[in-house]
Amino acid sequence: MAQAVRHDAMRARNLALVLGEVSARGSVTRAALAEITGLAKTTVSKLVGDLIEAGLVIETGVVRVGERGRPGMEVRVSGRRVAAIGLEINVDYLAARVVDLSRSVRIRRTQPVDNRMTSPGDVIAILQDLALSVVDEAVDSGLRVVGGVLAVPGTVDLATGTVHSAPNLGWRDVPLLSPLRTPFPLRVDNEANLAALGELWFGAGHPDFLHVSGEIGVGAGLIVRGELFRGFHGFAGELGHVVVSPGGPPCRCGGHGCLETYAGQDVLLAAANAELGAGIAGLLAELDAGNRDALAACERAGWALGVALSSAVNLVDPGTIVLGGIYAPLFPWIGGVVTETLAARLGQMREVVPSVEVSRLGTEAATLGAAGQVIQQVIADPAALLNA
Amino acid sequence: MAQAVRHDAMRARNLALVLGEVSARGSVTRAALAEITGLAKTTVSKLVGDLIEAGLVIETGVVRVGERGRPGMEVRVSGRRVAAIGLEINVDYLAARVVDLSRSVRIRRTQPVDNRMTSPGDVIAILQDLALSVVDEAVDSGLRVVGGVLAVPGTVDLATGTVHSAPNLGWRDVPLLSPLRTPFPLRVDNEANLAALGELWFGAGHPDFLHVSGEIGVGAGLIVRGELFRGFHGFAGELGHVVVSPGGPPCRCGGHGCLETYAGQDVLLAAANAELGAGIAGLLAELDAGNRDALAACERAGWALGVALSSAVNLVDPGTIVLGGIYAPLFPWIGGVVTETLAARLGQMREVVPSVEVSRLGTEAATLGAAGQVIQQVIADPAALLNA
Repeated sequence: MAQAVRHDAMRARNLALVLGEVSARGSVTRAALAEITGLAKTTVSKLVGDLIEAGLVIETGVVRVGERGRPGMEVRVSGRRVAAIGLEINVDYLAARVVDLSRSVRIRRTQPVDNRMTSPGDVIAILQDLALSVVDEAVDSGLRVVGGVLAVPGTVDLATGTVHSAPNLGWRDVPLLSPLRTPFPLRVDNEANLAALGELWFGAGHPDFLHVSGEIGVGAGLIVRGELFRGFHGFAGELGHVVVSPGGPPCRCGGHGCLETYAGQDVLLAAANAELGAGIAGLLAELDAGNRDALAACERAGWALGVALSSAVNLVDPGTIVLGGIYAPLFPWIGGVVTETLAARLGQMREVVPSVEVSRLGTEAATLGAAGQVIQQVIADPAALLNA
Repeated sequence: MAQAVRHDAMRARNLALVLGEVSARGSVTRAALAEITGLAKTTVSKLVGDLIEAGLVIETGVVRVGERGRPGMEVRVSGRRVAAIGLEINVDYLAARVVDLSRSVRIRRTQPVDNRMTSPGDVIAILQDLALSVVDEAVDSGLRVVGGVLAVPGTVDLATGTVHSAPNLGWRDVPLLSPLRTPFPLRVDNEANLAALGELWFGAGHPDFLHVSGEIGVGAGLIVRGELFRGFHGFAGELGHVVVSPGGPPCRCGGHGCLETYAGQDVLLAAANAELGAGIAGLLAELDAGNRDALAACERAGWALGVALSSAVNLVDPGTIVLGGIYAPLFPWIGGVVTETLAARLGQMREVVPSVEVSRLGTEAATLGAAGQVIQQVIADPAALLNA
């Protein structure tokens, strides 16, 4: 019995070792895997066989002359069977993304809902319908959704999946996991944290950056050497409540003059005299047309973002800054003033002011990071899936 | 030859293993060390013998009945021979502390020098005299100073020991290591970082806190699970340049309304209409006497500190906040308003607002952290010292 347990633990470790190498290297032969891992060739072949059977890896059909011995089939992570779902409750929409194990986005669904005017119970019901319909669509493509993460714009108790405070939703202490019935295991995490992880896994791919998530609320996620910095209670990265001016406009968090009161989506649209309903698309049209109010609103938001980011750079010294969410499409109008404000406030203290880059993912980053967390977990422990 | 190299490497590792356990446990028998480390008793005895001979550990003379076998002498880290020196260039003083390997402070020396009115070359000359005289005193006590770290109030290139920018000294790109001639290896590091490490090793001893270092400049050091968070370029923790109000007073860093312009020592003394020359001692006397200007100045500095710390808590989410440097003696007059300001700005976002504590070390923290770094290094690699 004890021997069987030891054997299972060793097999689990070796499966993770092999799948990890396949994932990191893109495609690789069994012979190369044996050389890299130090495992016997027969062991590798057995493990690869199990991974193929579970749909986690696939033979590419590409034959390459091996470094030693005869040519071998290469294997790579399979995108055909196992998938993860990223869900998001934001202030004015719900979203779902299905990503397969090879990190291709397979299904994108965004549903506008004014979640401020909707009770948490109703939001959860709509989200559940969205999740179930997306999972059905995934099943129709031959995919098996093995897990999901839900992104919410607020502070989250990771252990219980309860939203402690989401001021822009008006939510306090709302449990999300128990009322949600999903056919896959689900966790809840903060939207800005997940967006930073999404940028890490699906975007520019630096291992060191501060990702800014501009939505109706503003958040940030700090990635240090490829890891998310969460802070002591898990509430780090609340850039939206960094002080721009302590006597500034009242914020939903109870403070005054927080970044969100200058650069959040609704504030920005109101300052631009743009229709809230037309959203960022409407604002972009006004900016393209040279509307002065719209340009001035972006200038002001960019300045405030630069002020808050100068405090962030002074405190956490990130490698680079990546502007995501609504700041990605708005980058041509705010990137310059953010950079100038940072340079003016930081230039004498440090040789290099961190560069300000645009996210390639925009508002999709959080759902991709959410699905990406599940994929990371499968790669790290494939045995859990094989034994399930 | 290769076997000799392997033997040396193994001996170095085992010396570190044994000394590390002795240091962590306070005092311990050879038999217990063998049990803890898994090394043979004869190996442990040989290693302990070498460590005793090098003056790194000492027999306590306390005989205790061992868990197994006959009673044994306990050993502990020796404070009698090996010592480290912490040096500090601050804006209005130079300081040196000699700390022995058992972490007792053996020599304290602080010398008032107005380093703003003194050229870097002259400051370095005065510091070198101070260091040499302190080392002589240490030698007279039978101590051998094996290394030192120099704390400076600015951004430091750790690899070269060059101060990139110390705005309160008016220094830019000042190399410190090459001109300083010391009879021990020396490194240079940021004052606020070292103060946080000093608090970790000699103070309250939490493994998770943000330590605020109040001097003429204001800095901070974030300790996460017992490790200093340095940031990507090593410039994290510049709390003094976090924005309190972006249109506020001009700061020496080139920005406006940084925390330092509200809560730095000189600003605080000026706001209190106190004599700059009398320093914090003079201000404390005024506060004790109930001087209204002095009380109002502390109220304002505490408010600004609370505003900047609310941004810091939102960004890095520390376990607790420890107020050090001049804020330690001023704690009775600023601690309350800092806590109130934090609670007002943070209370709705998070269940628990980090507690605000007073440092037990005050302005001594940086030199203790500096010496402590050398001690950590000796404990981590005693073989380097034995072979030197």
